[in-house]
Amino acid sequence: MSDRIYNFSAGPAMLPGQVIRKSMSALWDLDGTGIGIMEHSHRGAAFQGVIDRAEALARELCGIPDSYSVLFLQGGASTQFFMVPMNLLGEGQCGDYVNTGAWSQKAMVEAKKLGKVHEAGSSEPDKFTYIPGPDQISWSEKPAYAHITSNNTIFGTEWHRDPEVPAGVPLVCDASSDIFSRPLDIKRYAMVYAGAQKNLGPAGVTLVIMRNDLAERAPKTLPTLLQYRTHIDKKSMFNTPPAFAIYVVGEVLAWLKEAGGLAAMAERNREKAALVYDYIDQSEMFSATARKDSRSLMNVCFRATSEDLEKKLIAQAGEAGLAGLKGHRSVGGMRASLYNAMPIEGCQALVNFLADFEKANR
Amino acid sequence: MSDRIYNFSAGPAMLPGQVIRKSMSALWDLDGTGIGIMEHSHRGAAFQGVIDRAEALARELCGIPDSYSVLFLQGGASTQFFMVPMNLLGEGQCGDYVNTGAWSQKAMVEAKKLGKVHEAGSSEPDKFTYIPGPDQISWSEKPAYAHITSNNTIFGTEWHRDPEVPAGVPLVCDASSDIFSRPLDIKRYAMVYAGAQKNLGPAGVTLVIMRNDLAERAPKTLPTLLQYRTHIDKKSMFNTPPAFAIYVVGEVLAWLKEAGGLAAMAERNREKAALVYDYIDQSEMFSATARKDSRSLMNVCFRATSEDLEKKLIAQAGEAGLAGLKGHRSVGGMRASLYNAMPIEGCQALVNFLADFEKANR
Repeated sequence: MSDRIYNFSAGPAMLPGQVIRKSMSALWDLDGTGIGIMEHSHRGAAFQGVIDRAEALARELCGIPDSYSVLFLQGGASTQFFMVPMNLLGEGQCGDYVNTGAWSQKAMVEAKKLGKVHEAGSSEPDKFTYIPGPDQISWSEKPAYAHITSNNTIFGTEWHRDPEVPAGVPLVCDASSDIFSRPLDIKRYAMVYAGAQKNLGPAGVTLVIMRNDLAERAPKTLPTLLQYRTHIDKKSMFNTPPAFAIYVVGEVLAWLKEAGGLAAMAERNREKAALVYDYIDQSEMFSATARKDSRSLMNVCFRATSEDLEKKLIAQAGEAGLAGLKGHRSVGGMRASLYNAMPIEGCQALVNFLADFEKANR
Repeated sequence: MSDRIYNFSAGPAMLPGQVIRKSMSALWDLDGTGIGIMEHSHRGAAFQGVIDRAEALARELCGIPDSYSVLFLQGGASTQFFMVPMNLLGEGQCGDYVNTGAWSQKAMVEAKKLGKVHEAGSSEPDKFTYIPGPDQISWSEKPAYAHITSNNTIFGTEWHRDPEVPAGVPLVCDASSDIFSRPLDIKRYAMVYAGAQKNLGPAGVTLVIMRNDLAERAPKTLPTLLQYRTHIDKKSMFNTPPAFAIYVVGEVLAWLKEAGGLAAMAERNREKAALVYDYIDQSEMFSATARKDSRSLMNVCFRATSEDLEKKLIAQAGEAGLAGLKGHRSVGGMRASLYNAMPIEGCQALVNFLADFEKANR
């Protein structure tokens, strides 16, 4: 890794070195077939092996039963923002959303174009610094589904326990920025979706895990590709899938399994985040922006005592090989994204840098 | 290329060796940034450079003026099949389609879900063995647009001159399987779209070239991502684009430019196809399936005198390092796809193999 730097970008984000090395080799020649992964027919045995393996690893890693499908789609979470209501929101029904930041809001905007939306809870009045608790959430009468965003990259908050929804209400979760960073009890969810470009692979593929029966709600008059049932029936291959991106996801999942699976990853992620938060908490120059009980293990958002110091810090960090620390333009400050592929050494390097910076600028 | 084989697959298909080598290097470290192309933030300067360069090369190669946008979208041509009518087909209007095979039909199926469709011409009664001539096409009264499929991978036919449409009617072309294989007079078209996985790059990105004014027809009530205007306004970055796939397209376009541009590529493609068709035409064992005036330069579809010989040929070719020669399951026989990246040496190797096979099985 000597010629690569620590990349704290919020996504697309760092990938494990061994995954990149395997992907480089597969570009030239996939498993000795004499044909690269980008060039194989998606109808051939070689690619079928690639997608089957990725699905099997996803199922194994979080114990996904056969009553759920594992799909590899295109268009990012933003496409799920409208596919979910298109497929699940029947005439006159209401979709319930917990508003924990910009991504929840974007999901609601698309749902409102297609049907009724109820905001079941919101931390907007407090600048999205926390995840609403059970007593701050009120669901509508018999919603078609309930939707949450499990991790909020911009505000650095994360749900630390599965939300309670009324019995029989399908819970839908946008897990784009924390999927597979910890165990996922899939049976509590009707559907989980995630753009790959944070914890799973490159941009250009979206993992959708959904209960099969849910797909039957959609009117068949929808465009073929916008019906989940099409992707379930055709096992993500109604049309040409994003083959290389799926290959990389498979390699990331294999790396995850090798690293001990989701429980081991959660332990490692807690340790990584603690290293950074602990330094910030004892610092006199820095402060974390999210409420302690809602802090994201994936995105550590923090401020310095002045904007001038923040600018200086981000510039000097970049020169020191710590990239992508600038906070989202809508909130300012710093953000260190510590997805699965960020090694603990990267977190330690960040803490060392922050300590040196604080000393030098006291 | 010694460890790679000739891949005649209809798509995903062969890519130029130099493009693959550059892509391998960029996976590890893009242009000395210390961060790989899959891991760069799409909002950063490095990726902005990648997408700007790809757009500039596309514009340069076929002289695309500023009144057209060049977009890099997701979802393949199959997504364009419904985005085109969603955006262009106003209340009560009709979309005209020339039916030249399975892909035209799929486009019509999606349009019919959204509005009125008129089949302006069809070669279906003759098993799609030719492209209808001007006297076989009758447009409806003031269609919202006219749609053609410029090359038909399954039946091996291709439009060899731009179709005539009534003045003022926007011509929309699915050029997935022959884009940039020859000069493209973009001003004759209102919109050209192409899934990348044949002539442009890997699966997972779709090139859309469209006249800007066309995007204004769409109702703003459509989901945000399904409106072309969103992608035009945000320069393909409303949400995270398929960054690696766009990088590869840029490298393919750079290779195309280096190779002399579209006119040189057309000359080379004529030569390559002639080599194969000439052999087939003089052969006693093989015959091409498409009518001579409609033959595709991209996909040479042909039959042998018996199905047993065809099976034997495809198997032996595979063993000899000539992959992907099996015809589409719906038509049988053989298909040799000769997209831009197939070198003339590959075509010569195929002809040599066919000649040997014919001699051995006379």
